Amino acid sequence: MDATALWQRYQKWLYFHEGIGLYLDVSRMRFDDAFVERLQPKFEQAFADMAELEQGAIANPDENRMVGHYWLRNPDLAPTPELTQEIVSTIEQIEVFAEKVHTGAIHPPKAPRFTDIISIGIGGSALGPQFVAAALAPDFPPLAIHFIDNTDPAGIDRVLTQVRNRLSSTLVLVISKSGGTPEPRNGMAEVKKAYAGHNLDFANYAIAITMPGSKLDEQAKSEGWLARFPMFDWVGGRTSEFSAVGLVPAALQGIDIRAMLEGAKEMDDATRVPDIKNNPAALLALSWYYAGNGKGEKDMVVLPYKDSLLLFSRYLQQLVMESLGKEKDKTGNIVHQGIAVYGNKGSTDQHAYVQQLREGVPNFFATFIEVLEDRQNPSPEIEPGITSGDYLSGFLQGTRQALYENHRDSVTVTIPQVNSRTVGALIALYDRAVGLYASLININAYHQPGVEAGKKAAAEILELQKQVVEVLRKEKTPLTLEEVAQKIGATEKIESIYLILRHLHANGRGITLQGNLGQPSSLKFSIGG
Amino acid sequence: MDATALWQRYQKWLYFHEGIGLYLDVSRMRFDDAFVERLQPKFEQAFADMAELEQGAIANPDENRMVGHYWLRNPDLAPTPELTQEIVSTIEQIEVFAEKVHTGAIHPPKAPRFTDIISIGIGGSALGPQFVAAALAPDFPPLAIHFIDNTDPAGIDRVLTQVRNRLSSTLVLVISKSGGTPEPRNGMAEVKKAYAGHNLDFANYAIAITMPGSKLDEQAKSEGWLARFPMFDWVGGRTSEFSAVGLVPAALQGIDIRAMLEGAKEMDDATRVPDIKNNPAALLALSWYYAGNGKGEKDMVVLPYKDSLLLFSRYLQQLVMESLGKEKDKTGNIVHQGIAVYGNKGSTDQHAYVQQLREGVPNFFATFIEVLEDRQNPSPEIEPGITSGDYLSGFLQGTRQALYENHRDSVTVTIPQVNSRTVGALIALYDRAVGLYASLININAYHQPGVEAGKKAAAEILELQKQVVEVLRKEKTPLTLEEVAQKIGATEKIESIYLILRHLHANGRGITLQGNLGQPSSLKFSIGG
Repeated sequence: MDATALWQRYQKWLYFHEGIGLYLDVSRMRFDDAFVERLQPKFEQAFADMAELEQGAIANPDENRMVGHYWLRNPDLAPTPELTQEIVSTIEQIEVFAEKVHTGAIHPPKAPRFTDIISIGIGGSALGPQFVAAALAPDFPPLAIHFIDNTDPAGIDRVLTQVRNRLSSTLVLVISKSGGTPEPRNGMAEVKKAYAGHNLDFANYAIAITMPGSKLDEQAKSEGWLARFPMFDWVGGRTSEFSAVGLVPAALQGIDIRAMLEGAKEMDDATRVPDIKNNPAALLALSWYYAGNGKGEKDMVVLPYKDSLLLFSRYLQQLVMESLGKEKDKTGNIVHQGIAVYGNKGSTDQHAYVQQLREGVPNFFATFIEVLEDRQNPSPEIEPGITSGDYLSGFLQGTRQALYENHRDSVTVTIPQVNSRTVGALIALYDRAVGLYASLININAYHQPGVEAGKKAAAEILELQKQVVEVLRKEKTPLTLEEVAQKIGATEKIESIYLILRHLHANGRGITLQGNLGQPSSLKFSIGG
Repeated sequence: MDATALWQRYQKWLYFHEGIGLYLDVSRMRFDDAFVERLQPKFEQAFADMAELEQGAIANPDENRMVGHYWLRNPDLAPTPELTQEIVSTIEQIEVFAEKVHTGAIHPPKAPRFTDIISIGIGGSALGPQFVAAALAPDFPPLAIHFIDNTDPAGIDRVLTQVRNRLSSTLVLVISKSGGTPEPRNGMAEVKKAYAGHNLDFANYAIAITMPGSKLDEQAKSEGWLARFPMFDWVGGRTSEFSAVGLVPAALQGIDIRAMLEGAKEMDDATRVPDIKNNPAALLALSWYYAGNGKGEKDMVVLPYKDSLLLFSRYLQQLVMESLGKEKDKTGNIVHQGIAVYGNKGSTDQHAYVQQLREGVPNFFATFIEVLEDRQNPSPEIEPGITSGDYLSGFLQGTRQALYENHRDSVTVTIPQVNSRTVGALIALYDRAVGLYASLININAYHQPGVEAGKKAAAEILELQKQVVEVLRKEKTPLTLEEVAQKIGATEKIESIYLILRHLHANGRGITLQGNLGQPSSLKFSIGG
């Protein structure tokens, strides 16, 4: 396509949202009008599905749940007045609470102000808050946030070390929908122990964000925690940024949550338009479908050219892959769907892997995120007439162009600046694109059966560990792996037993070991002795 | 394969490095003996190629350069005594310098000690130092490090804000092999300006890490910078962690660089063994070849189950993708090679995208990184007999097993703990695996022609920007995009002109604009007025 035709195509497909100042350019996806025509009926269905979902239909049938994250930013859409009221009053409570923490009306027992937050949560309870903190937290936030998003003991130690001198003025958010997810539960147990070690009553520092009535909620209630905020059963983890999960940490950091919600609402309005060309989420879904043939045949590489948006790709990785990565479609056919997402930031990644993007395996399409405003103040000139921001902008253009010339497609999302409204809008844009794309390929975007299976497998390993330890405790003489397995009656689990014992041995858990480490069958294990 | 056969396979293929305590398990890659047999001749060639390279052959012919990063950890291997001496003395200089900074023998003009480091570098001059800092920096490092790894004005501002109160005790590392890469050059210009703004003489704070004789080196020399350390022309950016690029920031943070070098050297010795089964790098290369059919048909998902190794996947992303992502093989055939790499950390990613890995598009193989030691001190029990580290270990096992059962292959690398030696060994292991794999697929792993092309494209955009501004300056009346393009004599660049003007307009650069933002052809631009 020559430059003139390409410029025509650019203008024909350019989407612009005036209120947010957001542009979407899909001109570098090489679909033609016939392709759009062909997808039209699928999109009509997708728009209808989405309208139903927004009205409270059971969109997640195998968990028998409504899918209501869109109501969070426009409570009037909720299907009942009670739900509307619950959303509205939760937001108000969060604002009031954050205000009181900021003024010191709510303060720790021995200090005038809270200074830090430890936020304990994983997956949907971490990625949104982390992304938003990196993108939007002011340079001098009223409270500095630290995340425990794993069950890694060394990682927990590192966070506790960071706040060691300020533990007595550190708030703890425990974010867990069910309250039963092991990672946050373990994190909480260890952090609680740290407070006890400093003779601090954890309840004076702790805030629960969980489903009313969950185990965590009951604990918080009975122990008299500082506050509790609700998670709703109709909001999934990966779309929970606009629930208390995202709003509490954001408000505490001094981020304008009303503006975030407003940006998301405006984008929701724009992505409700049942017209592909005038709906930016539909344009994204169309592009994804085109790139990967509706089967995820191409990876989505996300390149925000702005340091503060570094975590957006990780946020999208979860949103897209957990929503779309499914074995079966809604009809029950085996489809192995999904789209792999990765990326960090430009122009940095140009010095990491754009070499491969330009020349190597053509197994991806790129998403550029452009931010028009370079910085808040004017920039100095690096060369006559040229600033460091001009370079950043030039690198984005140059890379987009070079990829296109090498037959690598891309979309470009442009926002005027990184602020609460635009970040809210970006999240909403991708929420909806995922929802629409899921309809196009006929899958349920709102469950995650594979995650449950992983938890089960891990629980079995821990159960096996208890049996292994029990067997060794009873024995006087060292046992081979085979002997341990036989005594448990689980010879088929011998490898797991080996891996468990190797791990216990490395952690001073009383396991003695003899033999050649490189030859598992030569090893003998005992406890104590 | 039943459990017994699988356990046999596990033991048959288990690699163990006694000195480092590193295990490599490739039993979950489903290759058979015939496959290994078939690759044997390719491996013989790869081992021979590697031996030649280590002896100083020109392994990067189109840049006419030797490839000597292996000499850095074993200087006796260098092809001439002069090179050996240069490597040895550089390491000594780095140690002496770091020691002097730590004791205060070298200190800033108005303070007894340096407290912080701003490290300015991109790509190979950032990812290694960032990975190593996250993995190995002590909880209380003698100097705290901050990275500027982009030409994002807001990102630069953020770092300068972080150190605003300590700028007069902050060292600045400027890391750029050629000294001409725009991102670090821009970062340096802006940071230098910040020092001037505080009436501080930048030369008293600045250290150059660059090729002797480069523009940056000349500047550092003539301005009398605090120190200069050499980059060698025979070390590529992505394999430069064991040169001054990685060693200077590591030593300044109090990381044991001798142990890092030693770990790498031990691993180099182990990966020099010309026998697939007893060479962990060969086993990795074999696994990659098997997974992707020698064509990168599967992505490599890297999952370290340890928070401090979070950046390892980003480090590998560069190492693997920039080395292997090539259009042509060494013979000149168009091959579009590479392996896409992504990942963050376990078990966190299980709550992000393992849903898709388990059930969705089977377009990847996984790499688990296991760390046996949970933490330095004993762990409390979360449940009777179970610690948070047992959970982490259980999640790794459970996920590996679940993936395997769903026909998703994986390799597992196990290290005893995260320390300087094991991190050195990990880097060396993957260095070599990339080198061997490149031989298997007959590509040059040591150049990056696509990166140069990207830089050129960006330079053209900046040149065009100057022309655009010049044209508008001369005009009294507002011009349409088409008119600007015509006056420049570049109608084929109209879209670029539009994107440039949109960016300039958003940054208060004197551009006035009228018309409908959503319709580029309606816009008229002028300067001033």
